[in-house]
Amino acid sequence: MTRFFSSRHRSLVPYTPGEQPRDMAYVKLNTNESPFPPSESVISAVAEEVKKVRLYSDPTCKETTDAIAARYGVSPDMVVLSNGSDEILNFCVMAYCDEKHPLVFPNITYGFYPVFCEINGVPYEEIPLNSDFSVNVADYTAIGKNIVIANPNAPTGIALSLSDIETIVSSNPDNIVIIDEAYVDFGAESAVKLVHKYDNLIVTQTFSKSRSMAGARLGFSISSPAIASELHTIRYSTNPYNVNRMTLAAGKAAIESDGYYMENCRRIEENRAYTEKRLTEMGFTVLPSKANFLFAKSDRIEGGTLYTELKKRGVLVRHFEKPLISDYNRITVGTREEMDIFLAKTLLILEETK
Amino acid sequence: MTRFFSSRHRSLVPYTPGEQPRDMAYVKLNTNESPFPPSESVISAVAEEVKKVRLYSDPTCKETTDAIAARYGVSPDMVVLSNGSDEILNFCVMAYCDEKHPLVFPNITYGFYPVFCEINGVPYEEIPLNSDFSVNVADYTAIGKNIVIANPNAPTGIALSLSDIETIVSSNPDNIVIIDEAYVDFGAESAVKLVHKYDNLIVTQTFSKSRSMAGARLGFSISSPAIASELHTIRYSTNPYNVNRMTLAAGKAAIESDGYYMENCRRIEENRAYTEKRLTEMGFTVLPSKANFLFAKSDRIEGGTLYTELKKRGVLVRHFEKPLISDYNRITVGTREEMDIFLAKTLLILEETK
Repeated sequence: MTRFFSSRHRSLVPYTPGEQPRDMAYVKLNTNESPFPPSESVISAVAEEVKKVRLYSDPTCKETTDAIAARYGVSPDMVVLSNGSDEILNFCVMAYCDEKHPLVFPNITYGFYPVFCEINGVPYEEIPLNSDFSVNVADYTAIGKNIVIANPNAPTGIALSLSDIETIVSSNPDNIVIIDEAYVDFGAESAVKLVHKYDNLIVTQTFSKSRSMAGARLGFSISSPAIASELHTIRYSTNPYNVNRMTLAAGKAAIESDGYYMENCRRIEENRAYTEKRLTEMGFTVLPSKANFLFAKSDRIEGGTLYTELKKRGVLVRHFEKPLISDYNRITVGTREEMDIFLAKTLLILEETK
Repeated sequence: MTRFFSSRHRSLVPYTPGEQPRDMAYVKLNTNESPFPPSESVISAVAEEVKKVRLYSDPTCKETTDAIAARYGVSPDMVVLSNGSDEILNFCVMAYCDEKHPLVFPNITYGFYPVFCEINGVPYEEIPLNSDFSVNVADYTAIGKNIVIANPNAPTGIALSLSDIETIVSSNPDNIVIIDEAYVDFGAESAVKLVHKYDNLIVTQTFSKSRSMAGARLGFSISSPAIASELHTIRYSTNPYNVNRMTLAAGKAAIESDGYYMENCRRIEENRAYTEKRLTEMGFTVLPSKANFLFAKSDRIEGGTLYTELKKRGVLVRHFEKPLISDYNRITVGTREEMDIFLAKTLLILEETK
């Protein structure tokens, strides 16, 4: 560490993204990417847009914002775009949390929430999940604190119902409730319809998963116009051109080919049901997922061992060496062919370690 | 303002980017973009890369970092990429400035520096320029404070010599000195060669101006490996996938066609000399610029009036309604044809307002 580094950050432990190995071609089921290519319209929109790349992107992101607003039935002044949804989540923490306004979230959830708190000097509290890994709604009801909940949650995949979300939002009227819907398009209910009713709700989403755009970095929030305006204040105070031209064009084109992407989500749901059934038959405990991944463990093999053995055989899943969940692996749901390879290799490993 | 907004930010005044009007096609000389298109290799690299957009970008940005490192004669562990150079500048403020470590910069410079300080709760001091708008090196020599200097400075265009920069860096060994070289490719001397000698120096650059990539958002820093590592800590704690796939591909391709871009810079320098000469002949005071813009005033017309009259006639320049510089306009140097239109309209306006 240099002698210059601010004491604010000396104990900072950065977020660890999923590994992106380059040593060989894997069946890559470790970072919840979509197995489906972008739509033809996204490819052609970007190929056109790059020709204008000498000019700054529109800092108001108008056309893409309008398209997203229309798709979700809200007005454009309720939508804020960001460089991936990580950025908008960070903006939310910056805008609404501070020494006196901590952030509360489950003890097993997206690993970036505590990092956003640390880097912004915001205290946080982690509330244990139920023993079945579900969120206990009562723990978040009328607690008078800012809250972020991933719905469906990661890496469990378990979703809360819309009425449960509404209970949490309505019972904390003087605090911000952020619902991180990165995985909502795979079968959970979105809370977007509640933003018209509750001025303390922020819903965040991403184009990374359901819209095959992880590599383009496009996230957004939907909230009251007043909150959106404050998030814009943060955005214009850090990086007014935060979303580049190619990504803006890709996002607009993706919304215009929404049918293609939503059909892909249905295929993922089918492959998820298929994989869950096969894993259960093989003796795995599989949490009930509404996301594009499954969280599963077997009494016959340790989580870390299965991860390592699968990696040796060219299949990458994600293992978290953390208390409570180290028995499990998170398996992204890909194509049927990818899942069959994963299942076959898993069966082989189980038989070899008998 | 909502009742939720953190007291940290209640007095925040965001940065105001240059206007991007949509009402008509302007000769656009207001945001220092390049008039030249991207190289063919950039266009084709992006058109290919978008096909892989379902996959996350490489969080280590390895290939593009390697290309930049080779181009600048440094090792890859000295280079950190960012979503435009605004992001890396913000990371520098986050990493090295705090309540006890204020940031010092000229009172006339890039308008984002005070905003980065405000949003991060960092005190700052603005040091007046000399009356000829040059930086007084003695004001920054052995002051024992963190410093950021744009070289060439904006919106003046005036550059410091490398030996002046070295005086500032070497005389403040216990503080960080950031040299913001957004405009360095248009005739100023880069301080990159000093990073091998001084462990307190951070040089930042951007692909927005000299490499025709304002709409792609690619910036970078060059520093000691230890500083780069700390900037990565900040990066991984806010947005590990901060640079998207298309932009990484564009950046690598742009470095591979470096000759094309550096030749464009020489053309800008020629057009700058031509425009400066013509403006001087018309009675303007023009500051000696090493950037891709000129900062000029005339006793015959107010700065704001010239801006407004040019805009009416389809030519957009940038006017800052600020003390000391409100007589001036900042005029981006475009193609010879664009400069001739600007010059002709300016002449017309001067004659009409006689």
